[in-house]
Amino acid sequence: MSRPLRHILSADQFDPDFVTKLFANANRTKANVEHERRHHRIGNTLAGNILYRLFYAESTRTYESFGFAATHLGMSVLGTQSVQFSSVAKGETLEDTIKTINSYLPSIIVLRGQAVGDAARAADVSRVPIINAGDGSGEHPTQSLLDLYTMRQELGRIEDLHIVMGGDLWNGRTVRSLAKLAAKFPGNRFTFIAPPTFEMQPDIKAILDKAGVKYAETTKVTDVLPDADVVYWTRVQKERLTETQKDYLAEHPDTHEKYTLGLKEVKLMKPGARLMHPLPRVGEIKTEVDPDPRAAYIRQMYYGMIIRMALIEWTLGYE
Amino acid sequence: MSRPLRHILSADQFDPDFVTKLFANANRTKANVEHERRHHRIGNTLAGNILYRLFYAESTRTYESFGFAATHLGMSVLGTQSVQFSSVAKGETLEDTIKTINSYLPSIIVLRGQAVGDAARAADVSRVPIINAGDGSGEHPTQSLLDLYTMRQELGRIEDLHIVMGGDLWNGRTVRSLAKLAAKFPGNRFTFIAPPTFEMQPDIKAILDKAGVKYAETTKVTDVLPDADVVYWTRVQKERLTETQKDYLAEHPDTHEKYTLGLKEVKLMKPGARLMHPLPRVGEIKTEVDPDPRAAYIRQMYYGMIIRMALIEWTLGYE
Amino acid sequence: MSRPLRHILSADQFDPDFVTKLFANANRTKANVEHERRHHRIGNTLAGNILYRLFYAESTRTYESFGFAATHLGMSVLGTQSVQFSSVAKGETLEDTIKTINSYLPSIIVLRGQAVGDAARAADVSRVPIINAGDGSGEHPTQSLLDLYTMRQELGRIEDLHIVMGGDLWNGRTVRSLAKLAAKFPGNRFTFIAPPTFEMQPDIKAILDKAGVKYAETTKVTDVLPDADVVYWTRVQKERLTETQKDYLAEHPDTHEKYTLGLKEVKLMKPGARLMHPLPRVGEIKTEVDPDPRAAYIRQMYYGMIIRMALIEWTLGYE
Repeated sequence: MSRPLRHILSADQFDPDFVTKLFANANRTKANVEHERRHHRIGNTLAGNILYRLFYAESTRTYESFGFAATHLGMSVLGTQSVQFSSVAKGETLEDTIKTINSYLPSIIVLRGQAVGDAARAADVSRVPIINAGDGSGEHPTQSLLDLYTMRQELGRIEDLHIVMGGDLWNGRTVRSLAKLAAKFPGNRFTFIAPPTFEMQPDIKAILDKAGVKYAETTKVTDVLPDADVVYWTRVQKERLTETQKDYLAEHPDTHEKYTLGLKEVKLMKPGARLMHPLPRVGEIKTEVDPDPRAAYIRQMYYGMIIRMALIEWTLGYE
Repeated sequence: MSRPLRHILSADQFDPDFVTKLFANANRTKANVEHERRHHRIGNTLAGNILYRLFYAESTRTYESFGFAATHLGMSVLGTQSVQFSSVAKGETLEDTIKTINSYLPSIIVLRGQAVGDAARAADVSRVPIINAGDGSGEHPTQSLLDLYTMRQELGRIEDLHIVMGGDLWNGRTVRSLAKLAAKFPGNRFTFIAPPTFEMQPDIKAILDKAGVKYAETTKVTDVLPDADVVYWTRVQKERLTETQKDYLAEHPDTHEKYTLGLKEVKLMKPGARLMHPLPRVGEIKTEVDPDPRAAYIRQMYYGMIIRMALIEWTLGYE
Repeated sequence: MSRPLRHILSADQFDPDFVTKLFANANRTKANVEHERRHHRIGNTLAGNILYRLFYAESTRTYESFGFAATHLGMSVLGTQSVQFSSVAKGETLEDTIKTINSYLPSIIVLRGQAVGDAARAADVSRVPIINAGDGSGEHPTQSLLDLYTMRQELGRIEDLHIVMGGDLWNGRTVRSLAKLAAKFPGNRFTFIAPPTFEMQPDIKAILDKAGVKYAETTKVTDVLPDADVVYWTRVQKERLTETQKDYLAEHPDTHEKYTLGLKEVKLMKPGARLMHPLPRVGEIKTEVDPDPRAAYIRQMYYGMIIRMALIEWTLGYE
């Protein structure tokens, strides 16, 4: 091939033109898969191609989402969630593993790495496209695209939105990436709701400041809900807490309850607004909210598979 | 779809009419798969459909049995045996996981749950059929159907049988379900052979009493073998013993040996009788029995795959 | 089937005629897969057949290599790397597991066993071909074939070669098997380079002596490199060290460094010579060597998949 490889490594690589074109392709892909499923058929758009999932950390949702995406496109699917038990245990470098998998002639490798930068390291030595499915506390670029695509589908636009982000913003990879991506579209503004020590980190605020994007901060959950177009809620990332955050939670045991959304809170939102969540949730959105049309987090999972189908098609030059 | 979803949740849902029709379909499915394999071909009955295996507990036999069943029908197969390491570890509810998997558009979900009632909970929120592949100490409905189908194939009938059940009847999910199911067919009667504290539990006996089904109990293994049509043997479920049972085994270390069947015991059986076992066995049937035509437990595994093929076809309305 | 089953159990079963014919078939298979991949297609040589991978020990490289090999041939692929968590934990014998898997009608079983002789035990009870993918410290027959095929591809011949083997020759399953296999072809001779206590074991030397094959031994790495046609380097098998070997390494902490090859060492080799390694490596070949045309260890992985494709075809009578 003469054209350069099309990796998906970082949300930073997506400019508005790319996003616009990708979402148009995703709409076509969505129509296709819905048509095929109605007739109990599998698509054959990418039949003859092989997707390999190389996951150094378990992630049922992301792993299965890519597996189904590839299957609906007619691809063969191989891979494993337990790489850590084998070659890694024997001390093999990521580069050697990627070169080895390349030797088996996959069409594309979806990589869930162990550390920041793993996807870029993999791309440096791979002869086939790498899709970054999350590397430690670093990037998870397909997540921010699916979040934005959900807004496009549910609200009809990805501009001029008031996006409220709440919960553990400090450790939340999804809200960090989404803020950066949504800031690239005109008229979007943000309100960040977080307990003390869990606020959005300064690096993201600096990016917003530099781009001239408006944002506000608060610790009061209900004040801002009536004005939101999108409320993006997140769980506390127990596996990533700082010592300061642990102390805060120990001293304020009602934090989780204060940052829990029920029907009472959701009914403060505009009828056309949408409540999103990357899932899994651990109680911070009550299940009583699920039937409300504003609850978009389950449909968000579906859009996630669609956007991954569109991204796979893009990496392989099918668009 | 306007017709209600066809889940497989509990052995209680199978009435004799269902079983009769299913077994007729299974015979056709069995002839098909044997024909296809002779020609080194995969069937295409359900091509374009996707079976997803969601296993919260490891079970190589059941997991692979469903995987092969779906493959022989031409389905795509996805799934994982290690769900417990990921979303579950993060605290996601079964309902959220099922809704998420639904978003990826599978045709059917095979669920091995963690606790009694998991399959019913899954069915409550699923838009595609759920097949219960065992939920804790609760149901394992496809197991009792395959056991009965084995009798149909090996003995030519599922009525007027003297069924002897032996081993750990207290904790044995398979013998409990099979007793309930076989009791629905006229003329079947039972003898239960178990060490003290391992007897068939009162709830099953009450069901048999109510249905007017005859049964006897004994602790002497050999007495009843000459009169049996089917001997269904089981292993002690070490992972589920009560304290009383542990004490009994400690005080009677020869229990396992007393409840072991060898060729000497099997030769007491009628030539046309059959010895069954759900496997795995851990010595309670000696391997010297394997070549005897009465040993049906390996063929039982084959009938198990066939019956699962027929059940998949039924859930998807193909019959 | 009237012809006997074609298992792959031990490198001892390969005579020069078999190898010659297999390599000719592998060349055709290699041309086919390269042609198909250029057109983004999957082959259909063995479509309708099912390969089952039964791995009692994790081995990402071997597991995935067979998975891709079967996929490129158009086979359906099933299997699991985590057998040890399930039936095995419940105490099932290998024979019962093999019989059970046979019941599900696979076309072929690839087995990574736990102990020496597992593959032969499996073959004794299987109705479909068994391919031994390594059994403990015993055999790994497909590895020695892929090593020899790499020499055939890279050097154009498998005769009249000076093969230098270095590293942990005592515990290295690959070098042991390869020495036996390469000794069957005329004119090959060996030099073994190993630290004290890691020398090639007497059983292999006895085989070479009996066959009249020349070999030398040394502990000095660089002396012999200029005269080598093939340098086959290996890692210390930390998981298999004897007490004597542990003591030696403790007393000679510079052993690993002394047995590390960098560009300086590789440049001593003839331009047309080749450096091989079974991978994973843990530093004993520096990555600076990778771009050198003599570095053949990544291509070796590719030849490994090709030779496994050819072996699968052979076991199924397609040649």
